[in-house]
Amino acid sequence: MKFEELRIKTLAANKALVEHGLVVFTFGNVSMVDRKEGVIAIKPSGVGYEEMSPGDIVVLDLDGRIAEGSKKPSSDAPTHIELYKNFNEIGAIVHTHSKNATAFAQAKKPIPCLGTTHADYFYGEIPVTREMTKEEVERDYERNTGRVIVELFNEKGINPLQVPACLVAGHGPFAWGRTVDSAVYNAVMLEEIAGMAVETLELNPNAELPSFLLDKHFFRKHGKNAYYGQKEQ
Amino acid sequence: MKFEELRIKTLAANKALVEHGLVVFTFGNVSMVDRKEGVIAIKPSGVGYEEMSPGDIVVLDLDGRIAEGSKKPSSDAPTHIELYKNFNEIGAIVHTHSKNATAFAQAKKPIPCLGTTHADYFYGEIPVTREMTKEEVERDYERNTGRVIVELFNEKGINPLQVPACLVAGHGPFAWGRTVDSAVYNAVMLEEIAGMAVETLELNPNAELPSFLLDKHFFRKHGKNAYYGQKEQ
Amino acid sequence: MKFEELRIKTLAANKALVEHGLVVFTFGNVSMVDRKEGVIAIKPSGVGYEEMSPGDIVVLDLDGRIAEGSKKPSSDAPTHIELYKNFNEIGAIVHTHSKNATAFAQAKKPIPCLGTTHADYFYGEIPVTREMTKEEVERDYERNTGRVIVELFNEKGINPLQVPACLVAGHGPFAWGRTVDSAVYNAVMLEEIAGMAVETLELNPNAELPSFLLDKHFFRKHGKNAYYGQKEQ
Amino acid sequence: MKFEELRIKTLAANKALVEHGLVVFTFGNVSMVDRKEGVIAIKPSGVGYEEMSPGDIVVLDLDGRIAEGSKKPSSDAPTHIELYKNFNEIGAIVHTHSKNATAFAQAKKPIPCLGTTHADYFYGEIPVTREMTKEEVERDYERNTGRVIVELFNEKGINPLQVPACLVAGHGPFAWGRTVDSAVYNAVMLEEIAGMAVETLELNPNAELPSFLLDKHFFRKHGKNAYYGQKEQ
Repeated sequence: MKFEELRIKTLAANKALVEHGLVVFTFGNVSMVDRKEGVIAIKPSGVGYEEMSPGDIVVLDLDGRIAEGSKKPSSDAPTHIELYKNFNEIGAIVHTHSKNATAFAQAKKPIPCLGTTHADYFYGEIPVTREMTKEEVERDYERNTGRVIVELFNEKGINPLQVPACLVAGHGPFAWGRTVDSAVYNAVMLEEIAGMAVETLELNPNAELPSFLLDKHFFRKHGKNAYYGQKEQ
Repeated sequence: MKFEELRIKTLAANKALVEHGLVVFTFGNVSMVDRKEGVIAIKPSGVGYEEMSPGDIVVLDLDGRIAEGSKKPSSDAPTHIELYKNFNEIGAIVHTHSKNATAFAQAKKPIPCLGTTHADYFYGEIPVTREMTKEEVERDYERNTGRVIVELFNEKGINPLQVPACLVAGHGPFAWGRTVDSAVYNAVMLEEIAGMAVETLELNPNAELPSFLLDKHFFRKHGKNAYYGQKEQ
Repeated sequence: MKFEELRIKTLAANKALVEHGLVVFTFGNVSMVDRKEGVIAIKPSGVGYEEMSPGDIVVLDLDGRIAEGSKKPSSDAPTHIELYKNFNEIGAIVHTHSKNATAFAQAKKPIPCLGTTHADYFYGEIPVTREMTKEEVERDYERNTGRVIVELFNEKGINPLQVPACLVAGHGPFAWGRTVDSAVYNAVMLEEIAGMAVETLELNPNAELPSFLLDKHFFRKHGKNAYYGQKEQ
Repeated sequence: MKFEELRIKTLAANKALVEHGLVVFTFGNVSMVDRKEGVIAIKPSGVGYEEMSPGDIVVLDLDGRIAEGSKKPSSDAPTHIELYKNFNEIGAIVHTHSKNATAFAQAKKPIPCLGTTHADYFYGEIPVTREMTKEEVERDYERNTGRVIVELFNEKGINPLQVPACLVAGHGPFAWGRTVDSAVYNAVMLEEIAGMAVETLELNPNAELPSFLLDKHFFRKHGKNAYYGQKEQ
């Protein structure tokens, strides 16, 4: 296998979703991109996490054609490709139907930034896409799912590395990162802060975080003035 | 034992309910039907899941008479039989008191279809039966429980393979499927989407999913145009 | 040890609370009564569940004097004794601060009977005591806790074997049974139905169960016409 | 290592946070103080709990200078130091982003004392700090976090050993104790009572506990008249 290492890493990340309690049965998928080779590796469609082996991971070129592998790729592959094409610095994408984040997506509400746990990883609210039209759903649905995410980040001028997650209205969350580890990390934190947000809004529907506290927490962990962790990030 | 294989499979499915966290103590039951032989296999009444062996599973004919086995069958057996007689294509039934789905049943509210996680497995809301009358409860209660489910699906024209679950008002959920694996799968997904729905409605009481998105997700997984998974379903 | 068997059983039941997720640290306690010998066995005060051995269990007479054991008994012992003296048919008592049942106790609201899961084990709402007076709290507090429970059951004419649990206002739940197994069982079911009730009331604040359905479910499991389980109960 | 024992104990307490389900990834931190030596030991910044060894724990003097260790200390170290300098009797501090307590902190609401579970460990509501100003956040943020906690306890005249926890507005909980075991214990109980409080307020927004019941429960466990546990505390 030419892309053995990529497939092994992609498999490990997919299995990490189960360990973190983000998925049940065959739900969810992780992909990684190799930008030099112009390919992505992604989970096969409808295969259980337990029985999955590196050989089941599917490698696709950026037009969605199979480059290596004998399984059908995740039906969400066109969404992943659309994001890789437009968010040039991301290296991996995680899609789940994790409970709390999906509740916000189904409610068609962004997850507001209500505290420093959120601000440590996401520079502002987790936005929610507009609803897709009947035409967008009926034709080229999965690719259009990627398009409405990209459209949202462009229109709002959001940097996808500063807000590495998005909610698709009526569907669920996508998270990403420079590396596959950070993408999985962000998917876990997204679910965590979504759960806190549900409870916070129940206690105080008007809760909000001042922007200077958001700035403080995000930039003590990210960017050139970061001072959290053992080395500069 | 003539029905050894049927009893082994039925036992395994009953034990799967425990693994998926859907039942405590002796709550819940799974049955399977063998339509050629005209029998069903069902969990015994009030026996703990841990100590249960294939020989404890009770085989009944479709009039509810014991065909094989020395235990008393689940007191819900007449409900299961009523469903098998009227829903000709189902092969297994799962009854639980799983927390979130039971909350909707107790609230006497259907679980609305609020997102694609729901739409992937259930073609529309999970309906709730009407309340049973005093007479229906006092006489032939368990069989009448099956009857109000069948009545509901008939009156609303719902295909039980497209919406493979129902809430019994004031009681709890029943789920089913062509196979015992799909019946257990549907019972787990039902609980999952019920939990998401509680939280979604808390965030937005007016949340809803457009019908074309329901169509898209259900039919990409089910029916002749399905394109999810490794083969046609 | 004269009361070795009683202490071993009481220990096992206390440890079962941990397995069922009803207690953290040293919270909660189980006692058993031996009515012939006129003694109860109860958990020691403030001892961790992991390190507890049969010799730590304290045996008291019904005036609260130590009959066997070198540890101090649970500070709740006078509450248990008061209940044994007044509820003549119960054989064991379980006190926990389990989350959902405690929330109702703190809210000073009974747990209404909203479904058949509740009706299978408790014949009607789980009542909540009146608030205790300053005098009752400051003097003989733990014994008075037992007294307000007994007062409540007497005033409302509730049979403690038909409703084997009570919420103490601002405090938490007590459950009991003829045997120690049924007392633990009832404590687990109480927490389960409390969790379902919170969610049901959130979905429908006016939810209720008709009395004929309560009758049906309770009496198919309890009393001379019961037909649930493998033998008469 | 001069401070080997201190570092080993601090490590064990940090790992206990994971066992109690209070932290994910590198979130949270525990410190201990050695007042004779004038040093604190604290978790390193951004290091995973699994791989952490005693040599990773950082020892600082009370001016925040490294006394022993090669790692960077937790970025929250100045908050811990500020608390040790002002709360003279505490021996250890635990900071987490545990879900329920953080929800109250984000809602900027104190956790009211709603029941005896709370009253057993905290003598009254868990207070929440005022919001910090832009200036306090931008300059010397972590030290100012400690200062607003101290300011709150001073202004309200709260004894930090009687209420061994505080919520920082928009951020999360800090808990502490005379010993590291009691600090971890208090952090766990804080999360427990926060979860109960969310649910209690949902059931009854006007719930409250009379002060004489608070007095009774707190002082049966704490102070010279305590009678809970196996010895005087």
